[in-house]
Amino acid sequence: MRFSKSFFPTIKEIPSDAVIPSHQLMIRSGMIKPLGAGIYSFLPLGYRVFQKIMNIIREEMNSIGGQEFHLPGLNPIELWQETGRVESFGDIMFHVKNRQLILAPTHEEVITSIAKSHIRSYKELPQIWYQIQTKFRNEPRPKSGVIRSRQFIMKDSYSLDTSFETLNTSYNLHSEAYKKIYDRSGLKYFIIGASSGAMGGSGSQEFMIESNAGEDTIVVCDKCNYASNLEIATSNKQKIKFENISSKTEKVFTPNVKTIDQLAQFLKVPVEQCAKSVVYITDKNPILILMQGNDQVNEAKLLTLLGTEFRVSTDEELVEIFGAETGSLGPVGVSKNVKVICDNQLRDAKNVITGANLNDFHLMHVDLLRDSRIDAYADIRVVEENEPCISCGNSLRLIKGIEVGHIFKLGTKYSVALKANYLDESGNENPIVMGSYGIGIERIAACYIEQNYDENGIIWNKALTPYDLHLIAVNMKSEKVIESSNKIYEELSKRYSVIFDDRSQVTAGVKFKDADLLGIPIQIIVGERNLDNNSVEIKLRRSGERKIIKLEALQTEIEKLNE
Amino acid sequence: MRFSKSFFPTIKEIPSDAVIPSHQLMIRSGMIKPLGAGIYSFLPLGYRVFQKIMNIIREEMNSIGGQEFHLPGLNPIELWQETGRVESFGDIMFHVKNRQLILAPTHEEVITSIAKSHIRSYKELPQIWYQIQTKFRNEPRPKSGVIRSRQFIMKDSYSLDTSFETLNTSYNLHSEAYKKIYDRSGLKYFIIGASSGAMGGSGSQEFMIESNAGEDTIVVCDKCNYASNLEIATSNKQKIKFENISSKTEKVFTPNVKTIDQLAQFLKVPVEQCAKSVVYITDKNPILILMQGNDQVNEAKLLTLLGTEFRVSTDEELVEIFGAETGSLGPVGVSKNVKVICDNQLRDAKNVITGANLNDFHLMHVDLLRDSRIDAYADIRVVEENEPCISCGNSLRLIKGIEVGHIFKLGTKYSVALKANYLDESGNENPIVMGSYGIGIERIAACYIEQNYDENGIIWNKALTPYDLHLIAVNMKSEKVIESSNKIYEELSKRYSVIFDDRSQVTAGVKFKDADLLGIPIQIIVGERNLDNNSVEIKLRRSGERKIIKLEALQTEIEKLNE
Repeated sequence: MRFSKSFFPTIKEIPSDAVIPSHQLMIRSGMIKPLGAGIYSFLPLGYRVFQKIMNIIREEMNSIGGQEFHLPGLNPIELWQETGRVESFGDIMFHVKNRQLILAPTHEEVITSIAKSHIRSYKELPQIWYQIQTKFRNEPRPKSGVIRSRQFIMKDSYSLDTSFETLNTSYNLHSEAYKKIYDRSGLKYFIIGASSGAMGGSGSQEFMIESNAGEDTIVVCDKCNYASNLEIATSNKQKIKFENISSKTEKVFTPNVKTIDQLAQFLKVPVEQCAKSVVYITDKNPILILMQGNDQVNEAKLLTLLGTEFRVSTDEELVEIFGAETGSLGPVGVSKNVKVICDNQLRDAKNVITGANLNDFHLMHVDLLRDSRIDAYADIRVVEENEPCISCGNSLRLIKGIEVGHIFKLGTKYSVALKANYLDESGNENPIVMGSYGIGIERIAACYIEQNYDENGIIWNKALTPYDLHLIAVNMKSEKVIESSNKIYEELSKRYSVIFDDRSQVTAGVKFKDADLLGIPIQIIVGERNLDNNSVEIKLRRSGERKIIKLEALQTEIEKLNE
Repeated sequence: MRFSKSFFPTIKEIPSDAVIPSHQLMIRSGMIKPLGAGIYSFLPLGYRVFQKIMNIIREEMNSIGGQEFHLPGLNPIELWQETGRVESFGDIMFHVKNRQLILAPTHEEVITSIAKSHIRSYKELPQIWYQIQTKFRNEPRPKSGVIRSRQFIMKDSYSLDTSFETLNTSYNLHSEAYKKIYDRSGLKYFIIGASSGAMGGSGSQEFMIESNAGEDTIVVCDKCNYASNLEIATSNKQKIKFENISSKTEKVFTPNVKTIDQLAQFLKVPVEQCAKSVVYITDKNPILILMQGNDQVNEAKLLTLLGTEFRVSTDEELVEIFGAETGSLGPVGVSKNVKVICDNQLRDAKNVITGANLNDFHLMHVDLLRDSRIDAYADIRVVEENEPCISCGNSLRLIKGIEVGHIFKLGTKYSVALKANYLDESGNENPIVMGSYGIGIERIAACYIEQNYDENGIIWNKALTPYDLHLIAVNMKSEKVIESSNKIYEELSKRYSVIFDDRSQVTAGVKFKDADLLGIPIQIIVGERNLDNNSVEIKLRRSGERKIIKLEALQTEIEKLNE
């Protein structure tokens, strides 16, 4: 494409509402343009990248036997009422005014209804059905550009199986295909177990990339590839033991001591020796959580443990239950009505310090086994940076992550709701066993940029770059430059996709800046001085490496670089 | 694809709500499946055909310098309020409940807003921007399957120019590209001038295909390719002259004669000699239209002529204005208040018969020039089958047509409304001159089928067929058939896309019927008897021609057939 005849609207200024690099760079390089909150037009450069990603996905889906559908965005609301998901999606789902229609945020319902109509026998299973299509979700806080928008292109696929065993096969095929898709796209990613949210299912994995723009905190081990959402992460942190030096507890006056740090300082002991008491209220009981002083309660783990909702207690409740305020609470002598749960780090701990359930007093030399009633021990702490990995002992890292894919074992939730059954070998009806798998197209591009940019712009790889080559005519007033660059353009266009910056109204500086911003891997710079030596300059965008190449060697050099 | 592992849900029965052949066949062959009124899921076979059409369109759009965008379906309503099209689309436009968003039925607004943001100078023009994307239109009576649905894939493109002269170039480029698209798709089409409806513009053409399923009536000349919507069609029908044999009119009693046919019979004259009077009422005048007896008033032409709305008169009005009822009206002696318009066929007619403006009486020997006041002559008749073509004189045909494409010269309507200007050579601001061009993807497939089917199913051509070859293993109980057909499948799959009907649970008859229904151009039938002679049978779907081919000659034969 000749730059002069193309629509590559590059922008020098950083858009004021774009915070993360990929959002800024996609707008500045003319890949996307906002139309409304969380709604983007894809401009030619951007859509070329998205098309390359769609093609990679299509190839990998076809190679696991996927068949491509294209399902409507408009869905009759009745279908979604049958599965109860009008409620579970709530405000996320767009409704069409005065029509019994919604805009589909995903397509389990439609797929299941098609399966119900046409799948009769076990002989017709398994099937993998996919589409690459626009989804609509009314994100309450659309942000980070195309990473979280209100309409986006998604590859969603659905497996139909006779049993959970064969579902595992379909699920694993997807897991392998997804890895190939990310590998081919050049994404550095990791896989974590995840909760399946509104999808409802019996097993799932998230494919994540590391990025400060991410909304999830992930615990990763760079050695053994352990990765987990912080909400469920565990580590191999060792318990610290404090020998018991006393046969009984000792009540000490700790005036104005409210926090664990203040307590440790006041008593001149390590923070770890202080046992923190945190109180939650459930429908049934007050719950006292006992943690090592420097640990935080992981409420997601607690929720899983309790299996019921809870809330932080009020000051009034604390006084009523314990006779003391926050900062002076502890497990010793609490009423039977209070359930006491102790984090594993404090299992069998001796010589720890707890509140005395009397304002401004603490107990020293507490032996939890001897002096208190512990109803349960559990891992309810938040893992911290540099703790040892649970599987290999290496230092853990805490990073921010963006989800780029999600695979679910749905089971029979939708087939039971919509009565999508098949006849087995014995002629009995059974619900079809389903899986559901999603990848966001624009998100892959944005995540790639998050991992591949510098202060000058994007750095594309061969797989995703919108064009193979970026040819720059330095000076369009020079007849020689015009003639040579035109000839090179004609020649290279036979084998490669080429942007030819033939603009006459901008300076060479602007052209160089735009080339770095667009981030095509190979730049070919045609200037007068090099032409005098029958040469042009090649600049590699990623390394910044430059070399002077004789005109007659250019084709060969480009071939070599593109290998 | 192995049929046994694929989702090809063929249906024997004709769906009860599908009237036209393409609708029936697309459902029966498993290309599409209805999800709601005017909403269809595209199944794998159908989507393969649509993808082939999209690729043809993409290639032709790229070859005229088109740049591919992808614009959002969700649009802020404010943008559409600026151009006044929330009202002009009315109920056709879907609105999102409780959000200031609509679902875009077309994209002039978004394109113009992008041009406004980024186009500065005449140096950046012309541009051709296109997309292949889903449109949403709330058709009040969705019908004919994907030909008129509420969500459909459309290639829409927009040209941006500095002047109406260069707009003509962009318009003509599109016209040529469209012709290539239809030619490559194998559609027999014709081009007619058309009104530009809600688009608003200064010139447009419709690309139509002949089909009984069409909603428009088209007048076509098969010799010179004249084609016109019946609403504006003209012909070269000759006037018939009746010599004046009397120097004055003669009032005759015509009891119970109400229609022209009755009048002609009663007076024993040709119908053509009777002049029919039809009365309309406008805001200003009653209008008496005088037509030759066997002609019909073309109300579309009349609307253009009058430039104002009108309605048919009531019986009471007729008595009040003319003193007589329908069947006895005429132009002789009418009040000055009545405007008299005479169809060109009756220009200067002599010796015609008209009503006498007296119930049960007619006037004979009327000389329109001598006996009446004619305020205007015009072509206001409906052209009829077999009349001579206006440009070549050949017999005209009246056919039903379906629109498969539409190109418009928009001019500056949207650029003025949204202030999308460019600076010309002298530094003056001017509105960008725009064109808008659309092709419906599914409609091309449906129209192709309307033109290419028989009682057994679809007849695909090489360009649109979802697969190149349809391989049929006649008897999956025969080891020899299984082995040979598998080998042929492996071999042919290297170069062609192949459906391999390897089902063991259905009879050969079912396989043959499905193959004809799906309509792949070349069927390869592997049966025991032919294998005994080292042969297979080839059947060509269109001609029904069958030949026996030696196994070793099969590749060569297929190559020849695919040339």
